[in-house]
Amino acid sequence: MKKREIPDIIVSRLPIYLRALRHMQAQGRLTTSSQELGEQVGISAAQIRKDLSQFGEFGKQGTGYNIVFLVSKLREILQVERVWDVALVGMGDMGHALARYQGFSDRGFRVAMAFDSDPKKISGKVGEFVVRDAREMVKAIQEAEIKVAMVCVPASAAQEVANHLVEAGVKAILNYAPISLNVPPGVRVQYLDPSIGLQRMTYYLD
Amino acid sequence: MKKREIPDIIVSRLPIYLRALRHMQAQGRLTTSSQELGEQVGISAAQIRKDLSQFGEFGKQGTGYNIVFLVSKLREILQVERVWDVALVGMGDMGHALARYQGFSDRGFRVAMAFDSDPKKISGKVGEFVVRDAREMVKAIQEAEIKVAMVCVPASAAQEVANHLVEAGVKAILNYAPISLNVPPGVRVQYLDPSIGLQRMTYYLD
Repeated sequence: MKKREIPDIIVSRLPIYLRALRHMQAQGRLTTSSQELGEQVGISAAQIRKDLSQFGEFGKQGTGYNIVFLVSKLREILQVERVWDVALVGMGDMGHALARYQGFSDRGFRVAMAFDSDPKKISGKVGEFVVRDAREMVKAIQEAEIKVAMVCVPASAAQEVANHLVEAGVKAILNYAPISLNVPPGVRVQYLDPSIGLQRMTYYLD
Repeated sequence: MKKREIPDIIVSRLPIYLRALRHMQAQGRLTTSSQELGEQVGISAAQIRKDLSQFGEFGKQGTGYNIVFLVSKLREILQVERVWDVALVGMGDMGHALARYQGFSDRGFRVAMAFDSDPKKISGKVGEFVVRDAREMVKAIQEAEIKVAMVCVPASAAQEVANHLVEAGVKAILNYAPISLNVPPGVRVQYLDPSIGLQRMTYYLD
């Protein structure tokens, strides 16, 4: 099956399933059901079965899903059985938090380089990184063939940074700046904007 | 129309539309079309028209959407025309970043109190906040009738913190810890896990 035939909305749920399954795996569990998985992630069992059926036959009627197998398949589908080097741009509070974030290892990512345009931050150490001059960014990313970046610069600088990342060959941008980025076709942006996360819940508050 | 009748998936897209519309508004724009909005947010024009039609008649054939009006309606639907006080738990790097985040103001949120369990952090100042002892959390949140919280504690502590927040009456949790939280019905959790955001894109990388 060609990749583009799977709706984005289904792809977007797979990492959620993967996280929940790995959590079960860490607890020593061997099998699970679409019901149980659904309760953990807040998605109906029917939807989960439908989503997973897009990629093949993962479970058996009555015996449920083999967790190790399903984790392995989801990692393969999402292409995170390998490790992607990630460029981090903007070393303010959020950049520092991401540089030290413990949730990347073993989930497919490694922050490989960090950039800022502030002379006071350049050459500073953050964990094991030396912060590099943003002017070196395009060349450094091209040379390392990095395809994935995280942007944590102020909103006013985010579009320009995105343009540079696209120029450098980046195809996937995780954007923390509170602004929508314009990128050409073939480049994807995901937004991690806390206000968006919160607004998705206030609808339901009394 | 009762709230629960609108599918979650539609509600989850409204904040994205709102952000893009406000961006246009900031640029001095008066009207937009579902085509233009769709290009900005990466969602089809047909989907946008369908989503917005759930809430009433917002646009006119041929003249498009009035941005000011649509922004106002979306803020009302999402209940962010008011300001929600938010409790912040865990004052590591991510907590610091959130305490100083500039993207909350005017989008419906205000960090009102911050907690940590580390004696070295308690009573410390972060911006205009004094970090409070996590043991005071349940009482303080109850007294202030806070319904919204952000959790940025390590994965190992996140479920226990979530339990306390639920006990305190919190109904909406933005979770930064790389773990799925179990909460009772009526409490919502959104995950801002950078690995999830990245994994949603690696699927598409060559």
